[in-house]
Amino acid sequence: MNTIEVCFTPKLYSEIVTKENFIVVMADILRASTSICAAFENGVEAIIPVASLEEAKAYKDKGFLVASEREGIVTGFADFGNSAFNFMTEAVKGKTIAYSTTNGTQAIEMARNAEGLVIGAFSNISILSQWLIKQNCNVVILCAGWKNKFNLEDSIFAGALIEKLKYSPTFTIACDAAEAALDLWQIAKPNPLAYIQKAAHHERLRKLNLDDVLEYSFQFDTANVVPVLTDGVLVNSY
Amino acid sequence: MNTIEVCFTPKLYSEIVTKENFIVVMADILRASTSICAAFENGVEAIIPVASLEEAKAYKDKGFLVASEREGIVTGFADFGNSAFNFMTEAVKGKTIAYSTTNGTQAIEMARNAEGLVIGAFSNISILSQWLIKQNCNVVILCAGWKNKFNLEDSIFAGALIEKLKYSPTFTIACDAAEAALDLWQIAKPNPLAYIQKAAHHERLRKLNLDDVLEYSFQFDTANVVPVLTDGVLVNSY
Repeated sequence: MNTIEVCFTPKLYSEIVTKENFIVVMADILRASTSICAAFENGVEAIIPVASLEEAKAYKDKGFLVASEREGIVTGFADFGNSAFNFMTEAVKGKTIAYSTTNGTQAIEMARNAEGLVIGAFSNISILSQWLIKQNCNVVILCAGWKNKFNLEDSIFAGALIEKLKYSPTFTIACDAAEAALDLWQIAKPNPLAYIQKAAHHERLRKLNLDDVLEYSFQFDTANVVPVLTDGVLVNSY
Repeated sequence: MNTIEVCFTPKLYSEIVTKENFIVVMADILRASTSICAAFENGVEAIIPVASLEEAKAYKDKGFLVASEREGIVTGFADFGNSAFNFMTEAVKGKTIAYSTTNGTQAIEMARNAEGLVIGAFSNISILSQWLIKQNCNVVILCAGWKNKFNLEDSIFAGALIEKLKYSPTFTIACDAAEAALDLWQIAKPNPLAYIQKAAHHERLRKLNLDDVLEYSFQFDTANVVPVLTDGVLVNSY
């Protein structure tokens, strides 16, 4: 049997029970993982995740396209921010993009010790779950969270993914966080967008200027891609 | 308005948003907070929370009664472990007990920077919520968790307490973790014991030798006490 575990924030990543033969699914629904999936669906060749703005600037100076934001605001030198819609233009097709965000890329950095790292979003959830079942590996779903805190959107995504993995008899839930994520998803499932909007009165989501990307972020299977970290660069492995 | 925030594990305590004028409710349902409430209900005078076994041993040498366990096992020198039933004897009435547990007392140590610290359990939930409403303070519910990981029992307690605090118009939910706790409680509420038993196949709960204290731990209002930390010692403030 392979285990499924959920880590609600990067700060809890060092506490995961699974110690070997595991793939990390990084989930930052608002917005890095949704945007990365959109990018590959729209023909981006590769994405270089960079944790610091200094590195992002260095890639810019080398001639790469750079997507970069902090707390929802595009940083000065970047070509664009991290809305999924930014990655749906002709300008990005076939390109390699250096990408830095508040939570997402930092979570990717943290999980480099795993056997593999893949990006998960509602937009690639079905393809991703099929791919994970084929890998015959333990799975740790790493929620990017918000500044090391628990957030609802990444947690209900974890629950939705667990629901799909459970169709395979090879998986077993290995921690209370995974049980909780699955339960939260049962509440959110009838209308994930409405569910998440109850958190929208919090300062966090107001600051993100989410507008219509919010709706897109909770649509299933709009991107048939499996972005996998390979030699430090994300490429589509589907 | 006063805020309600939930911290799912001590490791996330440094990330809480509320920075001043807050009371921490420490919840370690299995078993420290349930046992502490039982102790005061049964006439214990005071409880000295100690984080390390070395300190517990020092109190023992000074002639105090000592309750101490690690991972559900009574430590060698202690008078008893941390089952609530251990505190329901004639021997403890009027006594001051030094108390050290795996998760609970360490969470208490961590929250000493707050305006106040109070112990929360299902057994004192109604009295506690009335007391909290009177304090006119922000509230941070600190789940002791399990070895820095999220656990279901402390999280559904957080949700149950939030439900009661929400009867007061002076409180507002301030983070996604509190929203999630409240939602998990809605699922668990019809039968909290059955809900928690779905986690019972995990190694964690098997190790605890919970037997019949499990049922007691999810009963409401069996202890009309409000254990408050005062000068480093827990006393009943009801």
